[in-house]
Amino acid sequence: MLEVKTPAEVLAMIRTEFAPLPDRTELVPLAEALGRVLAEAVAAEEYVPDFDRSTVDGYACRAADTFGCSDAIPAILPVAGQVLMGEGADFELSRGECVYVPTGGAIPQGADCAVMIEYTEDYGDGTIGVMKPGAPGMNLIFRGDDVFPGKEILPAGRVLTAQDVGALAAIGRTTVPVARRLKVGVISTGDELVPPDAAPGPGQVRDVNSPLLTAMLTAFGAQPVNYGIVVDDEPLLRRKLETAARECDAVILSGGSSVGVKDAACRIIESMGKLLLHGIAVKPGKPTIMGKAGNKPLIGLPGHPVAACFVAQLFVLPLLGQLMGRNQEAYTVTAELTESLGANHGREQINACRLRREGDKLLAAPVRSKSGLITQLAGADGYFVISRDCEGLPKGAQVQVYLY
Amino acid sequence: MLEVKTPAEVLAMIRTEFAPLPDRTELVPLAEALGRVLAEAVAAEEYVPDFDRSTVDGYACRAADTFGCSDAIPAILPVAGQVLMGEGADFELSRGECVYVPTGGAIPQGADCAVMIEYTEDYGDGTIGVMKPGAPGMNLIFRGDDVFPGKEILPAGRVLTAQDVGALAAIGRTTVPVARRLKVGVISTGDELVPPDAAPGPGQVRDVNSPLLTAMLTAFGAQPVNYGIVVDDEPLLRRKLETAARECDAVILSGGSSVGVKDAACRIIESMGKLLLHGIAVKPGKPTIMGKAGNKPLIGLPGHPVAACFVAQLFVLPLLGQLMGRNQEAYTVTAELTESLGANHGREQINACRLRREGDKLLAAPVRSKSGLITQLAGADGYFVISRDCEGLPKGAQVQVYLY
Repeated sequence: MLEVKTPAEVLAMIRTEFAPLPDRTELVPLAEALGRVLAEAVAAEEYVPDFDRSTVDGYACRAADTFGCSDAIPAILPVAGQVLMGEGADFELSRGECVYVPTGGAIPQGADCAVMIEYTEDYGDGTIGVMKPGAPGMNLIFRGDDVFPGKEILPAGRVLTAQDVGALAAIGRTTVPVARRLKVGVISTGDELVPPDAAPGPGQVRDVNSPLLTAMLTAFGAQPVNYGIVVDDEPLLRRKLETAARECDAVILSGGSSVGVKDAACRIIESMGKLLLHGIAVKPGKPTIMGKAGNKPLIGLPGHPVAACFVAQLFVLPLLGQLMGRNQEAYTVTAELTESLGANHGREQINACRLRREGDKLLAAPVRSKSGLITQLAGADGYFVISRDCEGLPKGAQVQVYLY
Repeated sequence: MLEVKTPAEVLAMIRTEFAPLPDRTELVPLAEALGRVLAEAVAAEEYVPDFDRSTVDGYACRAADTFGCSDAIPAILPVAGQVLMGEGADFELSRGECVYVPTGGAIPQGADCAVMIEYTEDYGDGTIGVMKPGAPGMNLIFRGDDVFPGKEILPAGRVLTAQDVGALAAIGRTTVPVARRLKVGVISTGDELVPPDAAPGPGQVRDVNSPLLTAMLTAFGAQPVNYGIVVDDEPLLRRKLETAARECDAVILSGGSSVGVKDAACRIIESMGKLLLHGIAVKPGKPTIMGKAGNKPLIGLPGHPVAACFVAQLFVLPLLGQLMGRNQEAYTVTAELTESLGANHGREQINACRLRREGDKLLAAPVRSKSGLITQLAGADGYFVISRDCEGLPKGAQVQVYLY
């Protein structure tokens, strides 16, 4: 019999038992790369900018020709022409001359600074006066100042932001190698379940886990495949699980609150590969099963949607992230607990909470409800964890909230 | 001439000048509701659960029949039958009897508690012994404990999480009223711009703002419409802006770094409706124009992608959120600055940063680069704001980071 593991043990087990999928890379157009996981590091292949540019509207010249000038004694320079936006500056500036350049315009050979137009005066006779001395490099961006060939722009595993998409556009990367969206089978079990669009009869409840897990997987960037509701029947469950495992990269089973169904799920998973885990010391979420067929995770979540949600968040998404080679960093928001909260379980305890601002403070109101479902899910902004050795938190305690 | 406004003044102006769109609601299937903005508050229309349920595997009975029992002197109760999952319990329990109920099973009339199976012994003769006294309500969830008809589940304006989707499934809401995705026109201007998939010639650069803004709008839940690159030509720009304004709910123009183009954009916006703003006291991002044609925002962003990105994040997305009736709360992550940072501008200063963990600490490394583009966008995790009256921040200062 497998023992109940602590959350840290489960995460360590996931790291050793599952490897990133070898065939996970696919190429997508840049326009579809937002939110995807970068499969390989991206390096620049060219210089950005590709030419020396001015950062101001003004005159490109040699700084030395302006040394010592002032409002009283301007440096007088003949204007040799102007640089147009979008065109090169393929001429060489002679000593003592200047050219007009717009912001972003190319700087001709021979010039080593740009003087802002505000510090010049146009005498109307083909010359200008410069009132403030320049310095070499002033108001210029040099070729490759931003990036140069070979410079790493983005690391593998990064979840691409809109800003990353902009940067990829800037270096002309219009096709991006990303981890494909994993296909994840979702199966709900339970004789009491009816689909969400059905009216539950006596003793029946709606299947919440399928839409919940489907939405969580979608938000994570996976591709959920719904296998519907299976009644508590071992041969039927086995066929469904085997089909889902054949068609998907991972399978999540939820429900089966009765001991018989849990044992059946264990037997099926064991026969398909290896049972890795039977129970996690976390509240809620203890009755969790984890196994694998080859590198394919087979997971049995608790039937209660709140428990299923937390276990999916804490363990299943990190596992899928690992298969995708995804950066697993999760940031938390610090908030102040609005009321004291007991925890005396010897198990890590997960609490959903609602956030609200009061003046400068961000407050976290723990969601309390007797095995509640809607009230624990709807309107919650995130969750925090109370460690197993903590007997509870006082009102005003700082908690680290993971946002949904 | 309009004056330069502070960021707070701009946000206040947005609140008074733009109203939520009256025709913004559309109905979508629950499976497509993730990430959408709820257009109306949702209240439950039924009881959840709809029947009294057990939270344990065990026996439903009257608590009074177990008072005073113990391991030594069990309460002996005849088992009148069992409740099956997914079926009602439409019989009344007689005094002194019990029935077997699985976790989640219905509780028959007459029973007022459920005793965990672990505290009972099956004598095999149709009776069980209860070793631990029950109490009324013990291990039960009553009808409507979670929600009842009329109880508000989710407020209008909420961006729906996966957990909200689960809650909506639980109350049978399979169609959800959400704000439609706003159509937002994106136009880049500049003679120097080429599309990202083109190789820039001398003096040319790739158009970064179109893919950047498109991705930002997509991530925000809007529907970007790309109108391509327009050269610096007033009649052409006017035609493009008018077309985009006719076809979209809002238009974002970016670039036009030359004074002439900016003046042209102001003239065009003024003639189409009203010019509201010419310049924001924020660095980077000062040369921002904002106007409206009716309730349709017409926005001119700076040409530099980093400035365009910050202005879009700080002002354009909140404006679009207001048209959609979206909850505007933004949470920040607290991090420690890795190096001191100057700011001496009399303008609010926005800094991109990268986050990394070091032991227990979360560190924010400001991205520094001379008017850089890729290095300021790629790989940044978010940004923080230095207020206008602050002259800089020392190494180790706590900053509030808005995540991308």
